[in-house]
Amino acid sequence: MSGITGWAAKEPKTGLQLLKYDTKVLGDDEVEVSVEYCGLCHSDVSIANNDWGLTQFPVIPGHEAIGQVSAIGKNVKNLKIGDYVGVGWHVGSCMHCELCLSGEQNLCSDIQPTIIGNHGGFAEKVRTHWMWAIPIPRQLDVASAGPLLCAGATVFAPLLTYGIKPTDRVGIVGIGGLGHLALQFANAWGCEVTAFTSNKEKSDEAHEFGAHHVVDSTSSADILSRADSLDFLLVTVNSKLDWSAYVKTLKKNGKMAFVGLVLDPMEASVVDLVVGQKLIAGSANAGPAVISKMLEFAARHSIAPIVEHFPMSKVNEAIDHLLTGKARYRVVLDADFN
Amino acid sequence: MSGITGWAAKEPKTGLQLLKYDTKVLGDDEVEVSVEYCGLCHSDVSIANNDWGLTQFPVIPGHEAIGQVSAIGKNVKNLKIGDYVGVGWHVGSCMHCELCLSGEQNLCSDIQPTIIGNHGGFAEKVRTHWMWAIPIPRQLDVASAGPLLCAGATVFAPLLTYGIKPTDRVGIVGIGGLGHLALQFANAWGCEVTAFTSNKEKSDEAHEFGAHHVVDSTSSADILSRADSLDFLLVTVNSKLDWSAYVKTLKKNGKMAFVGLVLDPMEASVVDLVVGQKLIAGSANAGPAVISKMLEFAARHSIAPIVEHFPMSKVNEAIDHLLTGKARYRVVLDADFN
Repeated sequence: MSGITGWAAKEPKTGLQLLKYDTKVLGDDEVEVSVEYCGLCHSDVSIANNDWGLTQFPVIPGHEAIGQVSAIGKNVKNLKIGDYVGVGWHVGSCMHCELCLSGEQNLCSDIQPTIIGNHGGFAEKVRTHWMWAIPIPRQLDVASAGPLLCAGATVFAPLLTYGIKPTDRVGIVGIGGLGHLALQFANAWGCEVTAFTSNKEKSDEAHEFGAHHVVDSTSSADILSRADSLDFLLVTVNSKLDWSAYVKTLKKNGKMAFVGLVLDPMEASVVDLVVGQKLIAGSANAGPAVISKMLEFAARHSIAPIVEHFPMSKVNEAIDHLLTGKARYRVVLDADFN
Repeated sequence: MSGITGWAAKEPKTGLQLLKYDTKVLGDDEVEVSVEYCGLCHSDVSIANNDWGLTQFPVIPGHEAIGQVSAIGKNVKNLKIGDYVGVGWHVGSCMHCELCLSGEQNLCSDIQPTIIGNHGGFAEKVRTHWMWAIPIPRQLDVASAGPLLCAGATVFAPLLTYGIKPTDRVGIVGIGGLGHLALQFANAWGCEVTAFTSNKEKSDEAHEFGAHHVVDSTSSADILSRADSLDFLLVTVNSKLDWSAYVKTLKKNGKMAFVGLVLDPMEASVVDLVVGQKLIAGSANAGPAVISKMLEFAARHSIAPIVEHFPMSKVNEAIDHLLTGKARYRVVLDADFN
């Protein structure tokens, strides 16, 4: 049996340590990717710390991996050795349920997350079903593309799901790893874009990412100054904000979508929803066809994550950097196993 | 000055009394309808009692009026004297805002409700802008069509707004004036229909209205027995139920729409919305084009309210009948002013 070395959480909140895990013979539908870069996402830390109670220890986090295909199973027809691909939040699904058959594999009940019950991309190599090894367009910089695979897909998918039009006015709550990509996508989509952020220092950068207006995300008065102005509001933060005020920023027929796992329940006024014919939704990542579309769109519009690089061997420092709110805007780990 | 006689609330909770109000010369864009029948809706009582703090006393309620056009202003091109029309929740809008121009006049900020600042259909006559005098298809029974104008439009519009498909599985919460119509519409729409009711005695009738399944709306266990089964859930009740359990009845991508003014805020789990990619929405009546479509659809599919008739002079008895939960399923008042 051969093995793969990576940086693993062996138990919650003890930092990542080197681990070599055994691998089986590559499956007929599997692809092995030699990881060059892997984004660091807040959910990697949530899994390492078992915040959601879903972790299977030991686990190698990492679900924004970029690298070249190094081996393919015999059924793999769409990829060849050396292709640059990305691996995001998922590495497999049942393939036969209604959702899989409809191109919404991300919603499959038997979905296989890359870092739950599997090992992820903070490693020499990562394995996935071929369907989730997404080819990276040549125009994209492979060193920074990683965060597109999860953060990018997460904020891009709702624009398609909720039928956002270039004539729409769009708000983005939070300018972090997700939000700074959402601003770029919404601007390239043709929309008028309003950024909501708690950090005044990010105002200039928010404009550079594509925001036409910047509003204090924590001031109910400032939020309400935008009442009845937005067709769509995308919430990229995990913290509790004044959702009732945010609902009021929506125009009639307006839509509000959460993409982060806000653990506090939200309270909504049914009267506000009915009278304004508004809706509140959640969005759960994206299927492979949407991820490909997102990458193509990002390439065409020169949309890229702003990243800070850390050597993968300094993953624990990188996590500290992320958790202390210093990341501008996304951390990418450069594989250094040799 | 001429006048119109009707049954008016002069102050909250004192019953309706006869009132003759003065009328101006009919406006160029106005239509006067000689009322023959008018549905009694719970919101007529809410307005009469000023439950929402919006009432302008004295007020003649009634917003499901059916009758023949008795006079038209000089700009009215689509109607002639003697045409049967219905007047629902609205009698005017600004005509020039984006929503009016887009056929969503019901969402206009300057919308004129029939019984707020105007007098409604519990009267000899009711006046409206021509746009809101909706022609009644010949195939519909004018004596029972009234409730389609508000209750029918309210439950029909979301099927269009939220893109419900005949292949969908649809749940209807509440089998009252609205719900018994929603069951008929959803069945004729081609859907598999589940009725949720607190009243076991309505089970047989729910099946007759088109329900394939009937579930106890107040039992969380019974609701959860339908987990992950519905594409769309329409909530027609105004009371507080176990919304968290209802969200779980939705399949992935499922949609839940409220049409009633549930005054208690609802608490929703953002995690449930995100992981299931679900949405919660409100729907606010319908514009005239949608009301016409609804009437045409009702005529084609023989959809009709089940009504109990009271002479309009017994409106106060009819209100008691409604408030004590005895109405099966909608009350219609027959004008008897002669």
